[in-house]
Amino acid sequence: MPLGRRRTAPDPPVAPSPPAPTPALRGGVDLGGTKIQALVLDEAHTVLGRARLETPREGGPEAVTGAVAAALGEALAAAGAEAGGLRGIGVGTPGAVDATAGTVANARNLPDWIEPYPFAAELSRRLADVPVALGNDVDVAIRGEHALGAGRGHDELLGVWWGTGVGGGLVLGGRMWAGRGFAGEFGHLVVRRGGALCGCGNRGCVEAYAGRKSMEAWVRRREAKGERTDLFRLMEKHDKDRLTSGIWWRAVRDEDPLALRAVERALQALGAGIASAVNLLDLPLVIIGGGMGDRFFATHGDQIAQYTHESLFRAGSPPAIVPGALGDDAGALGAALLLG
Amino acid sequence: MPLGRRRTAPDPPVAPSPPAPTPALRGGVDLGGTKIQALVLDEAHTVLGRARLETPREGGPEAVTGAVAAALGEALAAAGAEAGGLRGIGVGTPGAVDATAGTVANARNLPDWIEPYPFAAELSRRLADVPVALGNDVDVAIRGEHALGAGRGHDELLGVWWGTGVGGGLVLGGRMWAGRGFAGEFGHLVVRRGGALCGCGNRGCVEAYAGRKSMEAWVRRREAKGERTDLFRLMEKHDKDRLTSGIWWRAVRDEDPLALRAVERALQALGAGIASAVNLLDLPLVIIGGGMGDRFFATHGDQIAQYTHESLFRAGSPPAIVPGALGDDAGALGAALLLG
Repeated sequence: MPLGRRRTAPDPPVAPSPPAPTPALRGGVDLGGTKIQALVLDEAHTVLGRARLETPREGGPEAVTGAVAAALGEALAAAGAEAGGLRGIGVGTPGAVDATAGTVANARNLPDWIEPYPFAAELSRRLADVPVALGNDVDVAIRGEHALGAGRGHDELLGVWWGTGVGGGLVLGGRMWAGRGFAGEFGHLVVRRGGALCGCGNRGCVEAYAGRKSMEAWVRRREAKGERTDLFRLMEKHDKDRLTSGIWWRAVRDEDPLALRAVERALQALGAGIASAVNLLDLPLVIIGGGMGDRFFATHGDQIAQYTHESLFRAGSPPAIVPGALGDDAGALGAALLLG
Repeated sequence: MPLGRRRTAPDPPVAPSPPAPTPALRGGVDLGGTKIQALVLDEAHTVLGRARLETPREGGPEAVTGAVAAALGEALAAAGAEAGGLRGIGVGTPGAVDATAGTVANARNLPDWIEPYPFAAELSRRLADVPVALGNDVDVAIRGEHALGAGRGHDELLGVWWGTGVGGGLVLGGRMWAGRGFAGEFGHLVVRRGGALCGCGNRGCVEAYAGRKSMEAWVRRREAKGERTDLFRLMEKHDKDRLTSGIWWRAVRDEDPLALRAVERALQALGAGIASAVNLLDLPLVIIGGGMGDRFFATHGDQIAQYTHESLFRAGSPPAIVPGALGDDAGALGAALLLG
């Protein structure tokens, strides 16, 4: 039976029928450059159904929107529900999100998705016209960790999302801090003025050292200068076209010298950035997530803490530095929370 | 007639006398390493009386407390009021302030003031037992600029207090952001990991490049290595025992090469730090104050803005960068606001 309809029950003898209940389920989607993670949740945030699909590599926004709808369809089927039973769908997406207009632009990790695309309307159209809310991918993941994961019960925290780039988000006074709409660019704290060129065009940002993409560019330049590394051999062996966090993790495990140095630079930049943020805001909690963060926290979280402590103004009151608790679900759970 | 008493008026024939009015005046003090600025204000923050005394160079906390009381006495006299007419006194002070306990410790710019001293109680005792509220010197100055000066009407801003050190303070959501009690250490944002040694013991902080004390140490090292500068000749000529902001200003005006380089390094560090704070918090407004800031903003504010823009993630929406509007009164005005 589709959810969202009442079970048949004997009519009460006198009282008028109660109004039809509002659909109680929510969809949450984490749209990434590699995969689409879709969840169907009840009001208590219990996952009733889940699905994961690969993100299309071509076909533009239409193909991606179709794949998101398909992932949600699978998650709904797993939950024994239908799209009409959702009271809404939240999606965390890369690129420039205009939540009010329901559009996404400049999603460079998605195929041919530069111009603003009416993602919310197009996804809604494919799913029984259910309302769709959009959010930034890192923002929703930190929202998820705050509400349901490692940040639960905390009113102040910094989320550091260490992946292809280095994203961030702040919870202040119990709420995500938006600034004028674009706060949280932890990856663009300057930790070495005039230093390494960053993808953003500036120099010396955290991301210029710690972003997976910057790390790959750095080892490629080193290799071109004759330094030895197994990173690219591992990449080919595992049939990848870039240095994924899994490849980095294997190379570090195997003590590849260039991989070790690249990760060391990343950890130092992350620590200096975290210390800067804590010196400015005196935050009690830092949550590390993202593809690289998820891979490396268990083995290298202590080093992040050490490099943070080296630059803390108040050595006596360091923040707790913890890994995300929701793993791959953080983004989709947080996206579902966009519905309020 | 002492303020705080009612003017004589014919008794109303029947109604009971209204209660005696609460004293309406407030005292505000900015206690600095060089001078003590005292103001007497009415409820509309109009300055009714003011006084400035030199800070004692010896005699410990007792002598300083006596001098603060004397400065307030002069300001009260100028206002035609007495201590009993104050509903309270707010004091901005260097060192580690425990506002609840009313103590100050580790005020290294004040004579022999290391152990916690019951400053609020001792000052109150000297001034008709009027309540005394304590605050951090930079914090109260930024509070003053927010309420009455360059930040008026703004709910979000960063104050950068460029002086002996580099202090800072954040207004978020209309209120000073305290964190766990020690937020706002803008001077200890890391702008060059592993860089210049800072007074705090860490490396590469904004203050390690821009603090007046660090700037002086840097030119002394350069001079010892044979580089030429007129800075110390100017210092002696003006009968100073350190490079004051006035000495720096004269040397820069005279195009002293080493002074120009030191100030350039400071401006670069300030710009990188401001950009970091704005990238993280997306703030619309930055107020520059402090002894060096007050001296240099008119001639070098554009350069601070330029170095900020070089490291901004969102080049299209820079913050407004403005000088403080209250000058030397910022601290004393903000201190008076501590009384609520």
